[in-house]
Amino acid sequence: MAMRLEAAGRPLQQVWREPVPEPGPGEVRIRVSTCGLCRTDLHIVEGQWREKSGVTLPYILGHENAGWVHAVGPAVSNVAVGDAVIVHPLITCGLCRACRAGDDMHCAAGRFPGIGVDGGFAELLKTNARAVVRLPEGVEPEHVAAHADAGLTAYHAVKKAVDILYPGTVAVVIGAGGLGHIGIQSLRSLTAAEIVVVDRSPEALELARECGAHHTVVADGTQVGRVKEITGGHGAEAILDFVGEGGALEDGIAMLRRAGSYFVIGYGGVIKVPAIDVISTEINFIGNLVGTYNDLAELMTLQRRGEVTLHTSRYPLDAVNDAMDDLEHGRLHGRGILVP
Amino acid sequence: MAMRLEAAGRPLQQVWREPVPEPGPGEVRIRVSTCGLCRTDLHIVEGQWREKSGVTLPYILGHENAGWVHAVGPAVSNVAVGDAVIVHPLITCGLCRACRAGDDMHCAAGRFPGIGVDGGFAELLKTNARAVVRLPEGVEPEHVAAHADAGLTAYHAVKKAVDILYPGTVAVVIGAGGLGHIGIQSLRSLTAAEIVVVDRSPEALELARECGAHHTVVADGTQVGRVKEITGGHGAEAILDFVGEGGALEDGIAMLRRAGSYFVIGYGGVIKVPAIDVISTEINFIGNLVGTYNDLAELMTLQRRGEVTLHTSRYPLDAVNDAMDDLEHGRLHGRGILVP
Amino acid sequence: MAMRLEAAGRPLQQVWREPVPEPGPGEVRIRVSTCGLCRTDLHIVEGQWREKSGVTLPYILGHENAGWVHAVGPAVSNVAVGDAVIVHPLITCGLCRACRAGDDMHCAAGRFPGIGVDGGFAELLKTNARAVVRLPEGVEPEHVAAHADAGLTAYHAVKKAVDILYPGTVAVVIGAGGLGHIGIQSLRSLTAAEIVVVDRSPEALELARECGAHHTVVADGTQVGRVKEITGGHGAEAILDFVGEGGALEDGIAMLRRAGSYFVIGYGGVIKVPAIDVISTEINFIGNLVGTYNDLAELMTLQRRGEVTLHTSRYPLDAVNDAMDDLEHGRLHGRGILVP
Amino acid sequence: MAMRLEAAGRPLQQVWREPVPEPGPGEVRIRVSTCGLCRTDLHIVEGQWREKSGVTLPYILGHENAGWVHAVGPAVSNVAVGDAVIVHPLITCGLCRACRAGDDMHCAAGRFPGIGVDGGFAELLKTNARAVVRLPEGVEPEHVAAHADAGLTAYHAVKKAVDILYPGTVAVVIGAGGLGHIGIQSLRSLTAAEIVVVDRSPEALELARECGAHHTVVADGTQVGRVKEITGGHGAEAILDFVGEGGALEDGIAMLRRAGSYFVIGYGGVIKVPAIDVISTEINFIGNLVGTYNDLAELMTLQRRGEVTLHTSRYPLDAVNDAMDDLEHGRLHGRGILVP
Repeated sequence: MAMRLEAAGRPLQQVWREPVPEPGPGEVRIRVSTCGLCRTDLHIVEGQWREKSGVTLPYILGHENAGWVHAVGPAVSNVAVGDAVIVHPLITCGLCRACRAGDDMHCAAGRFPGIGVDGGFAELLKTNARAVVRLPEGVEPEHVAAHADAGLTAYHAVKKAVDILYPGTVAVVIGAGGLGHIGIQSLRSLTAAEIVVVDRSPEALELARECGAHHTVVADGTQVGRVKEITGGHGAEAILDFVGEGGALEDGIAMLRRAGSYFVIGYGGVIKVPAIDVISTEINFIGNLVGTYNDLAELMTLQRRGEVTLHTSRYPLDAVNDAMDDLEHGRLHGRGILVP
Repeated sequence: MAMRLEAAGRPLQQVWREPVPEPGPGEVRIRVSTCGLCRTDLHIVEGQWREKSGVTLPYILGHENAGWVHAVGPAVSNVAVGDAVIVHPLITCGLCRACRAGDDMHCAAGRFPGIGVDGGFAELLKTNARAVVRLPEGVEPEHVAAHADAGLTAYHAVKKAVDILYPGTVAVVIGAGGLGHIGIQSLRSLTAAEIVVVDRSPEALELARECGAHHTVVADGTQVGRVKEITGGHGAEAILDFVGEGGALEDGIAMLRRAGSYFVIGYGGVIKVPAIDVISTEINFIGNLVGTYNDLAELMTLQRRGEVTLHTSRYPLDAVNDAMDDLEHGRLHGRGILVP
Repeated sequence: MAMRLEAAGRPLQQVWREPVPEPGPGEVRIRVSTCGLCRTDLHIVEGQWREKSGVTLPYILGHENAGWVHAVGPAVSNVAVGDAVIVHPLITCGLCRACRAGDDMHCAAGRFPGIGVDGGFAELLKTNARAVVRLPEGVEPEHVAAHADAGLTAYHAVKKAVDILYPGTVAVVIGAGGLGHIGIQSLRSLTAAEIVVVDRSPEALELARECGAHHTVVADGTQVGRVKEITGGHGAEAILDFVGEGGALEDGIAMLRRAGSYFVIGYGGVIKVPAIDVISTEINFIGNLVGTYNDLAELMTLQRRGEVTLHTSRYPLDAVNDAMDDLEHGRLHGRGILVP
Repeated sequence: MAMRLEAAGRPLQQVWREPVPEPGPGEVRIRVSTCGLCRTDLHIVEGQWREKSGVTLPYILGHENAGWVHAVGPAVSNVAVGDAVIVHPLITCGLCRACRAGDDMHCAAGRFPGIGVDGGFAELLKTNARAVVRLPEGVEPEHVAAHADAGLTAYHAVKKAVDILYPGTVAVVIGAGGLGHIGIQSLRSLTAAEIVVVDRSPEALELARECGAHHTVVADGTQVGRVKEITGGHGAEAILDFVGEGGALEDGIAMLRRAGSYFVIGYGGVIKVPAIDVISTEINFIGNLVGTYNDLAELMTLQRRGEVTLHTSRYPLDAVNDAMDDLEHGRLHGRGILVP
């Protein structure tokens, strides 16, 4: 069974015969335990990604997957049938400069199940051996699926910020949602920075405090001033913006300290900043795209040790259209997780 | 004698009694050999910097200085009267976190002669002992003054780019003028990257080739396409934009490769880029503000070894208004240098 | 009052008239709150450092100092009389390449109170303005003196190791004494590495567990095998050796993983390793010398936030000879602290 | 035809039927153009490596290979039959943490043709698709074979040193032989450091000057003093030791500046240094093991651009025993190259 997109703007439709062929030499078939639901899925249904992904309808969505190895191709040596795994979202070649430097997301030949080819809103999923991370003992697929994209993206951004977040610095997290709450926990685990979290929602800020935020700031129009106050008037060394729209970018830039770095993670808005402001304060804007395979393996270590925990809401896979509706209308708390 | 700004929009006026008091404990008085003329000087006369610098008129411009030590305060141990020196543009405290980390330009108490206090369009200049770099044997002040800001800024940006410019990568230099031609030479000296230079002026591109550019591209509307062609359709790993206005930013961003970095050096324009473009390609924007004292000392080493050479036009100091006129109207080739 | 070394091999002698002249332009006089006692002090009394330090007897020992500003020279702007401070052990020039790059310990003109000039086994101590770190609110001099050398050295080594200690890696700490117990706490604060502590003493290992060690290993001859076992046979990515003698070096090298790094902190022994072993596994040996001023400021932030705590034993200053005797004979638990 | 080792201490013997089976799914068969001869080959014949490599005799030596793709397995997509390639010496898995981080030499499942399995003293060689670097246009296999190990090792060490070799620093190269002369050229290409080369042989120093050395020093017993003199008494920021025996290590350590780094590349001797010397100057020892695939690709770029050139002596493959004899007795100039 799978939930398939037949036409833009239409609910996903249940199909029974999945086209999941036998794995090729280096490929792996996964029995999906759980698949995360992402705001990107809404955008795909709306038709926004069609041109970028070049996908042909109908196809199966779902790019945050964990499960068990169901079959392996003849050249696969790193996993065996039955292994519990989380699936890195990109199928990579292992041969290009980027793969060889560990920059998986910039693979010259990457394919993206759930975005460009059939994904994990299904019982079975095909990927390749390079994409699967064996789970450490004690970590269950159902507890980690949302790490495959949401958690990984947050962790990757935090890891890029570690070097500038020595003790005495401040990291501002904008948005304590599905990605942000993993970002906060990763900051606690990897740095000794002071963590300030900005969000419109008091519930989200409550979650932020549980995740380890030192300060929380309601985004009620006073947020820039509050962050300035907390930072002694200087602003923060790092802004991790998990929102990227609706005024977050303008606010975030105003919260940045001289020589600070702005980590762009959320999207939707436009960065608009005079070059003179960039040079006179020597600030940086750092793009962030998902994360590497090694990042994902490291995140599984943090999960095993209890240093990060996902907050999720579960739905049966055949209720995915309800879940998407809840997500769109702000009724979905934590990351939505679909169970086939 | 000095050339002083009496009122915004008016020519600089010659004055004979300079207010250069005896140096305090850690201060140094410099007999100016030569002082570079910078486009920023035009902007100051136009009144654009008044609010940012907070300066009170009248005052003496000039922030690219080299000369000889004329007098030292009682606590100065690193230079002696008569030493040939180049003057780092900022007077720094040596006590704040930034100074102690070598980030001179972010000194919490920095003062900027020629912008916020009296500068070097004069026979004598006051700065502090931390700002003076003793020149290596064989290097004359008159040959290096323009390195104090123009050269230093270009070198600093190149140094930040070195790590990503391994053999096989491409660096695009936008603008082969006063800063750009030092940038090209610094790239040749510090990296094995392929250097592509883009400029509107064929003369500037001729200079670029002499400075070591591997490819030159006339900015005649086809420049983005040409850079894409040279880079096999991928774009460049690093863009060093010494222009920052008049379409340079839009062009430069279009020339950037996935995971590449855009070094913002020139200014005037506005960076305007959708967050989705920043995250889907994972590109970075890196601000650049002049350079550190150690950068300036390193640049003097390159100068001594003949690895960088400044292209300059000399004017007597009392002809500074002519020089500024020439600069404004594109008649000044290389960096303008004023001789008191 | 001060405790002065009159002759090698003799107990320190109480003297009443301290030669602490008025501070020069950039100097600061400190009223000592507490001064740490270091094994190096024993070695100085034994005469081992005389040649290296070039000191002339008699002079006052003590290089781990905290207290309050008692007087400042005319050019001092960063502290005022009465400020609570910890004293970086080296008096640095602020002008050489090393100072400007933040590598305080490699200052070309550094002087070391307590080793090369009069130190802090006294009521008053002279240093310079660059050496004093103002304490954050809530941090008292008496609680931090031992950070000035012991804590700083441990923190500095940990900070150099951070980049290689991503989640999933193992750091082995050899020696959970005065430096090691701060090293363990710093590792917990700055990294997500698994921490294994090796020591001969069960009490030290008990302290290690309180400080956050994940595994403790008694150095009873089985320690190399135990570490190999804990690391799945591979060895650890980083060894932080706070002992450096008595077999620690041989053990530590045997515990190192391929491509791992050995941080040399303790001393006394000799590193002896065939070049073929270094190249065939591509391991590194990293020297560590005290720490930078910025390191010390960062450590004060960790202290303020309760992320590190010193374990100390207090003695009146005039009982320093008893304290030294206790240290020599293993009766001194935690770091010894002298109170004038 | 191949030259095979039948028994330790015996000349290699010509064999006619090579056991080069059809390539498996991800494998590649190479028609060898040229294979470099390495001092390690002598050590293998002498029996020194038998235990480390675990190889079973008889087998074919030769680990510096370039040629043309002769056949590819069904899963190979990055090269086609007829492509000119250089062969990275290790067959790597592409799946372990090290491979994914670009640290090819630390692959958890690496196999080493010519050391542990059949190598390139043959007409045909089997490796895998991950090991072959396609040569840039204009680069012929016969001109680059010795880069596969000798050049790669030198380049890798230089690349690790780049960050500390800013303008004004000094790099000492010990040994201007097969590796060293590539090291010198790589230093010229990637850094602006002052290069000092130390060797016993005046001919080698002549080659060093041609390769770009700024200073050459005959190792006649005065070499430590000469390097100290050239460096103003301080010593060098980096030592690249391509010898590693016969006094080179002792000399090199004595030539090192405070906070400097010693790159261990050559082997045979023992590093023996008191821990107190390592900590009191904060020096480092950095192991170096061959290099990464990306390093090798970068080196091919330098070769194409004429920035590095190999100095070689050619022998027919069936004269390999003569070549080995010449190498052993110092009659082989440049790197020996065998042509099947």
